[in-house]
This record gives sequence, C-alpha cells and structure tokens, in this order.
Amino acid sequence: MHLEQLQSPKDLKNMSYGELSALASEIRETLIQTVSQKGGHLASNLGVVELTLALHRVFDMPTDQIVFDVGHQSYVHKLLTGRNRVFHTLRSFGGISGFPKRSESPYDVFETGHASTALSAALGLARARDFKGEHHQVIALVGDGALTGGMCYEALNDIGNRKTRMIVILNDNQMSIAPNVGGLSRHLTDLRISKGWLSAKEHVKSRLNKVPGVGKPVYRFIHLTKGYLKSLVVDEGFFTSLGLHYYGPINGHDLKSMERTLRLAKEFEGPAVIHVMTTKGFGYDKAEEKPELFHGTPPFYVETGDARSRSDLPGFGHVMAEELSDMAGRDPRVVAVSAAMTLGTGLSEMAVKYPGRVLDVGIAEEHAATMAAGMAVGGMKPYFAVYATFFQRCFDQVVHDVCMQSLPVTFLLDRAGLSGHDGATHHGVYDFAQTIPVPGITVLAPRDLDELRLMIRWTQEYQGPVTIRYGRSGISMRERFPCEHFQPGVWEKLIPGQDCLILAVGSMVCEAVTTADLLRQSGIQAGVINCSSVKPLDENMLLENSLIPWITMEEHVLAGGFGSSVCTFCAQEELNSPILSFGIPDTFVQHGSRAQLMKYLGILPEQMAKRIEAELRRKGKVPYVREDESGCSPGQTGAVYKP
Amino acid sequence: MHLEQLQSPKDLKNMSYGELSALASEIRETLIQTVSQKGGHLASNLGVVELTLALHRVFDMPTDQIVFDVGHQSYVHKLLTGRNRVFHTLRSFGGISGFPKRSESPYDVFETGHASTALSAALGLARARDFKGEHHQVIALVGDGALTGGMCYEALNDIGNRKTRMIVILNDNQMSIAPNVGGLSRHLTDLRISKGWLSAKEHVKSRLNKVPGVGKPVYRFIHLTKGYLKSLVVDEGFFTSLGLHYYGPINGHDLKSMERTLRLAKEFEGPAVIHVMTTKGFGYDKAEEKPELFHGTPPFYVETGDARSRSDLPGFGHVMAEELSDMAGRDPRVVAVSAAMTLGTGLSEMAVKYPGRVLDVGIAEEHAATMAAGMAVGGMKPYFAVYATFFQRCFDQVVHDVCMQSLPVTFLLDRAGLSGHDGATHHGVYDFAQTIPVPGITVLAPRDLDELRLMIRWTQEYQGPVTIRYGRSGISMRERFPCEHFQPGVWEKLIPGQDCLILAVGSMVCEAVTTADLLRQSGIQAGVINCSSVKPLDENMLLENSLIPWITMEEHVLAGGFGSSVCTFCAQEELNSPILSFGIPDTFVQHGSRAQLMKYLGILPEQMAKRIEAELRRKGKVPYVREDESGCSPGQTGAVYKP
Repeated sequence: MHLEQLQSPKDLKNMSYGELSALASEIRETLIQTVSQKGGHLASNLGVVELTLALHRVFDMPTDQIVFDVGHQSYVHKLLTGRNRVFHTLRSFGGISGFPKRSESPYDVFETGHASTALSAALGLARARDFKGEHHQVIALVGDGALTGGMCYEALNDIGNRKTRMIVILNDNQMSIAPNVGGLSRHLTDLRISKGWLSAKEHVKSRLNKVPGVGKPVYRFIHLTKGYLKSLVVDEGFFTSLGLHYYGPINGHDLKSMERTLRLAKEFEGPAVIHVMTTKGFGYDKAEEKPELFHGTPPFYVETGDARSRSDLPGFGHVMAEELSDMAGRDPRVVAVSAAMTLGTGLSEMAVKYPGRVLDVGIAEEHAATMAAGMAVGGMKPYFAVYATFFQRCFDQVVHDVCMQSLPVTFLLDRAGLSGHDGATHHGVYDFAQTIPVPGITVLAPRDLDELRLMIRWTQEYQGPVTIRYGRSGISMRERFPCEHFQPGVWEKLIPGQDCLILAVGSMVCEAVTTADLLRQSGIQAGVINCSSVKPLDENMLLENSLIPWITMEEHVLAGGFGSSVCTFCAQEELNSPILSFGIPDTFVQHGSRAQLMKYLGILPEQMAKRIEAELRRKGKVPYVREDESGCSPGQTGAVYKP
Repeated sequence: MHLEQLQSPKDLKNMSYGELSALASEIRETLIQTVSQKGGHLASNLGVVELTLALHRVFDMPTDQIVFDVGHQSYVHKLLTGRNRVFHTLRSFGGISGFPKRSESPYDVFETGHASTALSAALGLARARDFKGEHHQVIALVGDGALTGGMCYEALNDIGNRKTRMIVILNDNQMSIAPNVGGLSRHLTDLRISKGWLSAKEHVKSRLNKVPGVGKPVYRFIHLTKGYLKSLVVDEGFFTSLGLHYYGPINGHDLKSMERTLRLAKEFEGPAVIHVMTTKGFGYDKAEEKPELFHGTPPFYVETGDARSRSDLPGFGHVMAEELSDMAGRDPRVVAVSAAMTLGTGLSEMAVKYPGRVLDVGIAEEHAATMAAGMAVGGMKPYFAVYATFFQRCFDQVVHDVCMQSLPVTFLLDRAGLSGHDGATHHGVYDFAQTIPVPGITVLAPRDLDELRLMIRWTQEYQGPVTIRYGRSGISMRERFPCEHFQPGVWEKLIPGQDCLILAVGSMVCEAVTTADLLRQSGIQAGVINCSSVKPLDENMLLENSLIPWITMEEHVLAGGFGSSVCTFCAQEELNSPILSFGIPDTFVQHGSRAQLMKYLGILPEQMAKRIEAELRRKGKVPYVREDESGCSPGQTGAVYKP
C-alpha cells in the first residue's frame, strides 16, 4: 500500500512487514524531497520512520494519545494521519505547520515546539483520563537531548511518585551513549543491538538507493566533544530510581522488536519508559554524516546536501561569534554559554578557536542563566547566546539570579522577531516585555552587523546585565549609514525629518529607512532614529524632538514593547504620544516567510508608508492632500494597536 | 565560647565538641527567641545548626564558598559570620535580610530566595575558580524539597558530565524517605543512622530544656500524604548515574560524623554529593511536630507555639480554597495544582475535603503549568495556585503551552504585590508585565475577598487562560461597597468624581478609596474606579471618561504594568494620558512591613493624596490654592515613573 492510498493509520495494522518496509522507504523519499524544497527538520524525522509506524500499528490513535516533544519530529506522523496530500505545503504560509497543530488534525493532541514539555503534557492527559475513568494509553515521545531539560525531570519525578499509567519513549539518537546503556539490556527485549541495528540499516540502504544522493549510509559514532553536553548520559538506574519501569534499549529501526516491546508496555499498569535507539538522518547519507546540519535545514540539493541559496552577508550569529572570539583572545574572563544551540547561535565557530571557553550545558536555559550568574560572581564575563524564544525559559533566573545581584551577564538573543517558517512557537517577540520591567538591565537591539560588533565590544567593561537581540539574517547599512559609535541611552538620528520621526528598533531600522524613502517620494519628510538602546530610552532625544509626530517600529509584540515604553515615558513627561506604533499585534502569528508574515501584519515599508501618510493627512500634519487615498485601507493595518 | 565572643567562624576550629554542643544550644535559643519575635524561617534553621557548624569547621570561608539554596536556612551561618549582634533586626526594615545578601557580608557569596538555584550558581563559581586556576572548594547546600526543581537536575547533569570539582550537600529532612535511602549506606560513613540519630537528639534535649517550651522533642515520622510530592524520593543510584560521587547518608545532628565525611569530600577531585539526614525544627518540640507551620512563621509565643496575632478576616488563599472546594463539589472537572505550596496557597484546606483533587507536583512550576495544560486538553478544569514570585518560573509555559493553545487553565497568583519581610526575592511585582503581552490571556485582580469569589465562579465556564492575582491578607470592602457582579473588561465605578478619577487595581482599590476620602477633605472630588480587569481593559470606561484627569494605582512595577497599559491605550485612542501613575519604581525593593515599604515608595494614601493634590493644582485642574504646599515634596514620590 502506497502512502497516497492510506486512508487512516488503522490501515497500517493490516500491512505485512514487507509492505511496511516499502512504505518506510516511500516516507523517507517524501521527507527528503519535501524538506529539500521547503526546508525544515529532516534528520530527526528520518530517524523516527519505523518508530512512528510501530506506534500507529500498536496503538489506536487518536483514542490513544501521543505527545511529540519539540514536535519537529512529527512529519512522519503527519504523513500517516491524513496530511500526505498537503505535505508539500509544509511550513509554507497558509500550509501545514512543521509542528503538531490541533487545528490540523485530531491526531495532533498537544502542540509543541519548545523542548522538554511532552512528559508534563502527557502526564496531564493521563491524569485527565484517570479522573474521567477512561482507559486509553498516553505516550510521550522525547529525545535524549530534550531530556536534559529540567521540566522532563520534574515530570518524571511526578510520574514516578504517583505511578500514573503512561509510556515515555526515549528516542535516543546520540550514538555515543549507546555503550553506556548497552550493558544494561537485561530486560524484556532480546535484541542484540549491534546486530539488529546494522541489519536494519543494510535493509534500508537497499530500499533507498534509487533516490538520488540517498544510500551509502555511513555508520558513525558521534563522539561528544569534551566539554559539550548534548544529551543525557543515563542508564536504567536513573529511571528506575525515579519509579518508572524500564524497557530497552531497542533498535528503533527494527519494527518487529519495537512492536513487541510497545505491546508489553501498552498493557503495563504503571509508568514505563522505553529506550529506543535511532540514528538521526537514517537513510540519507548526508544527514547521517552531518545530523546537526540537517536538524533544521534550509532548502538544499538532494544530491550534494548543499543549501540552495546562500546569503552574501554573514548572519548576526556569525558576527557575534567572531567578535566574541576576538574578545576572548584579549580577555581571559570571557566565556560563552549555550543551551544545546552552539551551531544555531554561531558559538560553534568560537568553539573551534577556544573550545574550553564555550560551555554547552544541554537544553537547560534556566540552569545556563544561573550558572552564568555564578561565573560572574566568580569574576568571569559570561555571554549566554540563546534564541529569543527559548530565553522565555529563564525569565525568573534573569530577574532573581542575574539582575537582583546586578551581575555582568550578557544575553545574546538570536532569532529575535519573526522566526519565519517555524511559526508561532518560535517567534521571538516577547523579550522586550520580559526585560524592560526588570530593574538594572540594559536592553539593546542593533540596527545592523556593525552595530552588533560595537555593542559586544561595549559590554566587555560594562558591569551589569545586558540583553542584545537580533534576527538570523545579517543586515548591513554600512554604505549609507556607517556605524561608528554605540552608547546605551543615546539614539542615532539617521535621517532628519520635519513631518514625522520614525523611532525604529533593531531589524526595523532598515525598514524604517525604506519607509522614509517612500514617504519622501510623496513629499513627506520623515526622519528616522535608530533606537538601539531600548532600556534606557534616550530621554533627551525624546524631550528635544517632542513637537514632531512620532511613529514607533519594532519586530516585537506591541504590548510591553518599545512603543509601549515610549508611550509611558511620554505620559510621564506630558509629551505627545506616538501617533502610530507598528509591531506585532496581540495574537499568535503563524508560519511563513518573514516577508509574507510582515505583509500579513501590515508592516512592510510600503504598507507602513501608506498608513503613516494617511494618518499625517488625517491629523493635518502635512499640508497637502493627495489623490489616491484608496491606497491605504484600514483593513491592512494589522499591526497598529488594535488590528 | 559564647556566640557573642565569636570573632570569626575560624574560632570554631579550636573549640571542643563540648563547647560546640553548648554553642549549638545557644544558637537554637537565639533562633527561637528571634523568630518568635520577628517571624521568619525557623524549622529549617533549627535543622541545620550542626551542619552549619561542621561546614565552618571543615572549610575556610569565605575562601571556600557556600551557596545556600532557597537561602532561608542561612540564619545559623549569619550568626556565625559576624551578624550575631544585629540578628535581632532580622527581616526588619533596614535590618538584616532573612536571605543571604552580598551587601551584608563577604561570607554571603550568592543571593538566593527561590528554590533550586544553588547547584547552578555553585557550578558557575566552581568553573570560575577553575578558569582562574584557584583551588578552593565550592559547596551547594540544597534541601530534598528543592531538589524536585528541574534546575537542580539540569545542574547535576552538567556537573556530572564535566566532572567539575564541587560538593553538593543534600539536606534531607523528610524523615519518610529515610527507609529508602537507609539500605544504601555502604559508603565511607560508618554511622548507624538510628542509633546516632537518637543519641544526638537526647543530647540536644538535655541542653535545651531550660528554654521555655523547648525540650521534649518528639521523634516523628512525617508520612507523605498519598498523592503529595514534597521531596525527591531518590537513592544513591540517582546521583551516581548522573556522575557524582555519593557519600552518605550521615546523621546531620552528629558533628563528628559530618566533619569526617566533609573532610573526605573536601579533598575529592571531582563532584561529590553528601547526603545528610536532618530533622526540621530539631530541638523545639512545636516545630518538630508541625514543621510546615514553623517553616515560615509569623511571630509566635514560644511556650505554646501559637501565633501572636491573628487577623479577623480570612486571607485570600483561604477564600480561594473555599470557593474552589465548592466548585469541585459541583463540577468533577475541577482540579487544583500546587508546586509544593499547598499550605501557603490555602489548597491544603481543599485537600482535606477533596484529597484526590489537589495535585502537589513538587517545587516544579514549569511542569505544573504544562501538566495543567495537558489536563485541560484532556477535558479537566485545572487551577494552578502559585505565589506570584514563583509564577515567574513558568513564563514560557504560560506562553507556549497554555496560551498558544488557548487552554482553560487558571493561575491563582497568591502573595502578589509587596511580600513584606521576605523582601526583594519574594515581591510578586512582575506578573502583569509577564501576562499582559501574551495573546488570549485574561488578567484579573480582585479588589477584595468577595470579588475573588465572583471571579473564581466566573472562571468555571470560561474557556481560556486566566490569571487572578491577590495578596496574602484578606481585604473586605463589603460594608461600603458590596460586590455583586464581575465581568471581564468591565470596570466598576465605586466613587464618582469630577476633579480626577483614580484607576486602581487589586489591593490598591482599598487604598484609592482612602486616598479619595482624604482628597475630599481638601475639597477635591476624586472618583475611584475598580479596574479589576487588567486585560482586557474597560475601553468604554476610558473612552467615556476621557476628559477627567486620570491617576493609576497598582502594587506592581510601573514598566509593563497596568498604568503602562492604560498609557498605551490612551496613545492609540488619542486620549489624555494619566497625569500620575503610582506603583513600584524601577528598582528592587528590600524587606520590611508592607506599610513601611509603601511609605518608602510613597504609595500610602496620605502620600498619594498630597501628590495628587499638588499635581492637580499645578495643572490648574482644581480651582483653588491651598496654603500648605510644603506638605508634598517631590522627594517623597518614589513611586511615580521617575523616582
């Protein structure tokens, strides 16, 4: 039975192992082709093909419920649960999400995106089941990386304590830990891991070699670099000491073994953990060789594994790492911290030069922040590079451990603003709201790569906590607006203007300049101010320019953001408030390209220019009336305070 | 040597065990007398007297460094490190803090207050030491309760992975887990736990029976109630599987045994955990019998253990629990969640009636929030009661797991506002900032107990996420302003006024009424509006009353709070902004009584009334000029935007 003939995952139950093996190959081909076109998470999905098939064969979804930790390994599940025909829309604006979505399917029980939440969510589902006297199973599928997150442990402790019936599947794809756990296989499974493992791989290889670039999988042990912590080094004792029944390890590419163990666990009356060994990228040699690169990947050529397009400009993370490496060379106090994101944040580049100075602590943002605070007390100068969306994890630690002691910890917030195709769970649009109210912190957002360099240099001698937020793709304004100086609390007037002044932050400075250029074509002299210091505000600049109408622009939610901070200051000082504030409205934004999302939100320069022009005209702030008023309908202004 | 003769903790090293035993008794007497007068944390400090003495005898503080997890068990340490003479000022305004404070002493290395941070902080200190090539030891003292927090595990995983040299002392004071760990004592200590334990207790008893009410310690096993998770049920395997060397368990009231083990661990070249068994409240029978009541206690009579003063009004937590219990009786979906705070939040009262409906998940706010989200998906109606300050721990879970799926989870935020004597780490003043920017959440704060009841009843059928914040001490406005109706997005005009309108939230509504009464004595007609719905705002009320000057009042930081939200709305709608906003300024507030802190911040009604009057006069909004303008100096207005 081919993928397109599959009506429901129930059909899988009647298929032979031969048919299933063919289906697995077809799924891998679909994954590789789609992700090579659309970008997305590849290696993790290739690793769970057989596991997902086994789950749907043994359990009765959606009555039985599964929660995917992190959620980016749910593509196979999506293909098997009625989304094969729309799978080509993956991660596209208006298409299906790269993460579980309850609105897409009843088979997506709980939405995920951030790591380490599935055990807690599944425990909640299991408890609800028990309260209601129902009997289905609840399964949490969690990777060994995600298991380094403290939430998992809080959940395991709670699960083990009350012995709630549920199944935790530990998808262990860090080969390096296999030796540690291998010796403990004295449980129900009779698997010989090395033998079963390799034969399964050979089998897959033979099925896949018709796909260009697919085949020749290389069996490779990924040795953990000394000092890096990517996964949990656990053994059976860890789980049993917490009160869970342990099954495994099982070969996650051997359907039969898995089904046998899953059936046993299905009937178990308490909490169970099944330890499944899988290979990331299984079946596509490029992904097996470099699973980190094919974890989340942009569109690529299947034959070579190379990305389809490359930017001429370096990304912000790259420049950050370069600057931090330089500083580390000069200053022995400088140390970088990562929460399992060395590659994504750029710190892996610094680690090449200064391996001992980059500390990867696992998916553990809370610990990372407080550990950095400890290092700061000890006289070091720590930099914690973290995605803005994951920075939400350490709000309390920022307040309680870093800022309350006014410690010189710098938070480098990558992927701030709209994350694009990853969607709602990954937009980094709450970091200003999370930091502006905290006493003693300095909140910064560079307008371009050069200003980021200046900011990082500035932090070296600064004695307090700082956040610096930036997006993924580099921005350079060097040709038109060279950046030569940075000072907190001092803004930079890039373009003077008498009709209005645009106060823009970070990524929106570049958009503000384009907006001002468009307005100039309409005869409106709009100034642009680079407000790279969000806290403190440049109060003098505000006080001195209070007679010109202001507009604020930020890639952040409006409530609690930069614009809101300006409004509050204006109220206090009895100044005129901004006439317009552009940003993200009070709603969760879905996935799509950044440009698509900005258009949807009405914050593309042409949209903002029209809106500003209309507002100035309505207020009589510009002295002439133009013809095409129709060009700006209020319906397009999704980004002002009330969309 | 008596406590007052102690010049430095180094003096302890030359004392005989007889002298030390006498000193321990003196310390216990001081603790009991001081806390009975000042309130504070008693049981935990009585439990660590010998442990703290042993630490200071074996290690060379402050070169060797100790981090106290939670920090409320640092009283003995304070007494031994030069703060004996000021110990009577404990937790008083301007006096010493109930938690470690770096400004108080070089012996206080890292500040704590929230649980589960010490391992991370200590690891940071240990890493800084290694980077700098120093050789001192770093010690984290953590309780078994705090060890249920995920941060501890993130830290243990990181410590074990890189084998950083440091010592974790697990202060295990849950007697019920002794049997679990007792069988594992096959390590360095030759202690016979039951024998050593009881003889140490007898000894203490004989020293203490001169203190009134002290003596007759009753040896009691505290059995964990079924379904409650207060501590981690661990065994040695848990730590060794994470890569730490395990010593113990040792009797934490036997100085000699402890010193022997501490000396061994001091020289160990990797990470070690020392499992110490102590009895909470050791040496004061009332505290041993009811360690929960003497965990954090108000002033009490030593003889009886009874609190010195009792309020006539029930607290908000009590009323919440009563209302929730009623609802649970009517609605089988209702379930309460607690993160080791059943007593503090009032949920223990509900647990008496519906034990199965109160889930205590340990000190695990992140897990609690997401577990509640899972239960909501499963059809339950979960209520997570949590202190506002600890709610900071689950910011990401509120955004990512609850609000993004728009799940009907209600967060009941207790101890919101100024926490009083616990000080900076415990003020709950960031919850509005943390929730207002999040799409889809309803943010509420009742003006009094009756409104809290109405709000909780309202949540029963509401289908989305809600926070309700309230302080500890009950407020009733029933006589003058009976509360009969609650609706989100609709404010309540309590007092009409033509000169100004005070928009007040939660605990400040009562203060606003007093302020308005004072203003009326000066001939100013100030209205008061109860803005119990912070999100959504009552936009109609704002639009309809836009010509009267507004003043906002909240027990929350000004940035990102209610007043800021009003300013932002006013800017959007081109209304006049509030002329004054009262709240907590952009600084960390120390400890003291609520009234002392409010006075310090300039937000007592008499202070606010003067400030409002001056502002209205300055603006010419009230038609007469009074004589005593001197009564209101700007220096007192610490609570307006720029103090």
